[in-house]
Amino acid sequence: MLKFNLKNKKSPLHQKFDNKFDKSPYEIVKEDINKVNKFIIAKLKSDVPLIPIISEHLLKSGGKRIRPSLTLLFAKMFGYHFGDRHIELASCIELIHMASILHDDVVDESKLRRGNPTANNLWGNKSSILVGDYLFSKSFQIMVNDADFLVMKTIANASQSLAKGEVMQLSLTNNLDSTKEKYLKVIEGKTAGLFSAAAVLGGIITKQKQDTINHLSLFGNYLGIAFQILDDVLDYDISSNNFGKKIGDDFKEGKVTLPILIAYSRSNDKEKAFWKKVIEDLNQEKNDLKVALDIISKYSCLSEAKAFAESYAKKASEILDKLPKNDFNVSLNTICQFVFRRKS
Amino acid sequence: MLKFNLKNKKSPLHQKFDNKFDKSPYEIVKEDINKVNKFIIAKLKSDVPLIPIISEHLLKSGGKRIRPSLTLLFAKMFGYHFGDRHIELASCIELIHMASILHDDVVDESKLRRGNPTANNLWGNKSSILVGDYLFSKSFQIMVNDADFLVMKTIANASQSLAKGEVMQLSLTNNLDSTKEKYLKVIEGKTAGLFSAAAVLGGIITKQKQDTINHLSLFGNYLGIAFQILDDVLDYDISSNNFGKKIGDDFKEGKVTLPILIAYSRSNDKEKAFWKKVIEDLNQEKNDLKVALDIISKYSCLSEAKAFAESYAKKASEILDKLPKNDFNVSLNTICQFVFRRKS
Repeated sequence: MLKFNLKNKKSPLHQKFDNKFDKSPYEIVKEDINKVNKFIIAKLKSDVPLIPIISEHLLKSGGKRIRPSLTLLFAKMFGYHFGDRHIELASCIELIHMASILHDDVVDESKLRRGNPTANNLWGNKSSILVGDYLFSKSFQIMVNDADFLVMKTIANASQSLAKGEVMQLSLTNNLDSTKEKYLKVIEGKTAGLFSAAAVLGGIITKQKQDTINHLSLFGNYLGIAFQILDDVLDYDISSNNFGKKIGDDFKEGKVTLPILIAYSRSNDKEKAFWKKVIEDLNQEKNDLKVALDIISKYSCLSEAKAFAESYAKKASEILDKLPKNDFNVSLNTICQFVFRRKS
Repeated sequence: MLKFNLKNKKSPLHQKFDNKFDKSPYEIVKEDINKVNKFIIAKLKSDVPLIPIISEHLLKSGGKRIRPSLTLLFAKMFGYHFGDRHIELASCIELIHMASILHDDVVDESKLRRGNPTANNLWGNKSSILVGDYLFSKSFQIMVNDADFLVMKTIANASQSLAKGEVMQLSLTNNLDSTKEKYLKVIEGKTAGLFSAAAVLGGIITKQKQDTINHLSLFGNYLGIAFQILDDVLDYDISSNNFGKKIGDDFKEGKVTLPILIAYSRSNDKEKAFWKKVIEDLNQEKNDLKVALDIISKYSCLSEAKAFAESYAKKASEILDKLPKNDFNVSLNTICQFVFRRKS
C-alpha cells in the first residue's frame, strides 16, 4: 500500500495533473449539469408541494454533482451528441443519490449537510423518508421510460447495491470487531456501485463494447471507493476546515470507518479500551473527540487512509489511459486527482 | 351513495355471494401463494443477516397476500399455465408492499401490526428504513429481469403512485381542513395504485388487449379504494374485535380518514372544537378516544364509510362480469365481498 503524507510529498498522480488542476473538471459539462438540475426540477413538479420543496432544498444545498457528471463526461468522451438520454439518465443517478441522502440523514440523525440544515431537520423524519421513496420511484420511472434493458439493469443493480451497502453499514456501527475488507465491501456497496453505474451509462448510450463497459464499471468502482474513503477521512481532518461538515459526526454515532479501523488496530490496550467505550458503548464525554483525534494523529491514520484512497484513485486514473484521449478524459482524470484536494 | 348498516341489512352484493362465502377465495391459488413466499425468501437470502431476518418476520406476521393474489388470480383467469412469471411478478408486488409497510410503521411509529411487534419496534427505525429500501430495490431488480417493458412501466408507475400517496397523506394528518375528494386521492395513490398494478400484471403476462387491461386496472383501483376505506373504518370499529390492530391507532396520530371526515362534517360546534383539539392539536386526554367513538357512532359514520367502500367493491365486482367466467373469477368476486367481512 502507498504510504505518504500528501501534505509533505506529491504523488506521481499529483504531478501528472498539476498543470490542469486549476480548471474545474466540471466546467466542460457545466451546461449539461444545469440541464440535469432543470430536468430534475421539472420531473418533480407536483401537486404535492412537499415534494418539490424538499427536492429543491436538496438541489440548492450544493454538491458537486459528481455522479451525474460521470455519466455526462463518459457520454461526451464517446461522442454522444444527439438526444437527451445523457441528461435523463444522469438525472436518474442523481435522484437515487438524493433519495439516499434523505434516508441517510434520517438514519444518521444529521442536522447539517454542507452547512445547510438537513431536510429531516427542517421538515421532520417522516417527510424525508417518504419524499426519499418518491425520488427513488421517480428515478425508476424515468429509467423505464428510457426503455433500454441494459440501462435498467445497470440502475436497478446499483440501487440494490446501494441499499445493501447501507444495511451492511448498520453492522459496522458501534462494532469494532470489523475488518478493512468488510469496510471496503460496505463502501463499494453504498457509494462505488452508483459511481460505477453512472460511468457505465455513458458507455451504454454510446453503444460501447463489453470490454469498454467493464473499464467504465471498474473506473466508477475505484473512484467511488476513493471518494468514500476521503469522505470518511474528512470527518476527522481538522486541517481541512471542511465547510459545512462538522468534525466528528461519524465519531458521535460510533461509525467504524477506515480512520477508526486503522487507529484501533494500532492502539495499545489503554487506547483500545477508550475506543470500546466511545465507539461500541457510545459512552462519550466532552473531551473524547479530542482524545480520538490525538490517537488518530499519533498513528498517522489519516495519511494512511488518504494514501489508501489515493491508490484507488490511481487505479481509476490508469483505466482512463485505455480510453479515448480527449478533453473529457482530462476532466475525468482531474476528478480522480480532485479527490485529494477535497475539502468538503 | 349507498346507505345502510351492514349489520342489519344485507346488500345485493352480499346476497350474490353468500353461497360461496365460506370458501376462502385464496384457496384456489394457495400453492402459488406458497411459491410467492418461497420465491421472496430465496431472493432475500443475503450475506447481510438483517435483510432475511426482517423480511421473514414480515412474511410470518401474516397478511392475506391480497395484492400478489390479484396477479395470480388474473393470470390464471386468463389461462396462464406455463412459466413462473406470475410468481415472480406477484412477488415484486408483495415486495413493494413489504417495503411500504416497513416505512409506514416507522412514519406512524407503530408498535404492533397484526398482533406482532413491528420491525421498527424490534430492530429500530434505521433498520426498517434501510431494509425497506432494499426490498424496494430488490423488487425493481426482479422486474427488470422479467424484461417486459409494459410490466416495468406498470410497476414503476404503481411505486410512484404509492410514494406520492404517502407524501400526500402527511398533509392529511392533523389537518381537518380536508375533503373526501382529497382523502380519495390519497388512498388511490397509496393503496389502489398497487392493487391496480397487481391486477394488470395478470393481464399483461397473458397478453390481453388494452380494453381488458383497462378493466383490470379499474378493478384493482376500485377494490383498493374499498379495501383502504375498510382499513380506516376498522381503526374505529369496536364491534370488529379486530385481531392485532388496536382501536384508535389512526386517532392517536391525528390521521384524517373517512370516518373522521364524515364525523367532522356532521359535528356541532362543540364537537367540532373537540375534533380540532384531538386531531389538529393532538391534545388527547384519557377519555378522548371514547368521546370520539361516541360522536362517530352518533352520526353512523362507520356505516356510511362502509357503505361508501361497498359502492367501490360493487364497481369492482361489476367489472368481473365482463371478464371470463371461471373459478378464478368467482374467487375474485369473493374477495370483493370479503372486504365486508374483514376483521383485521
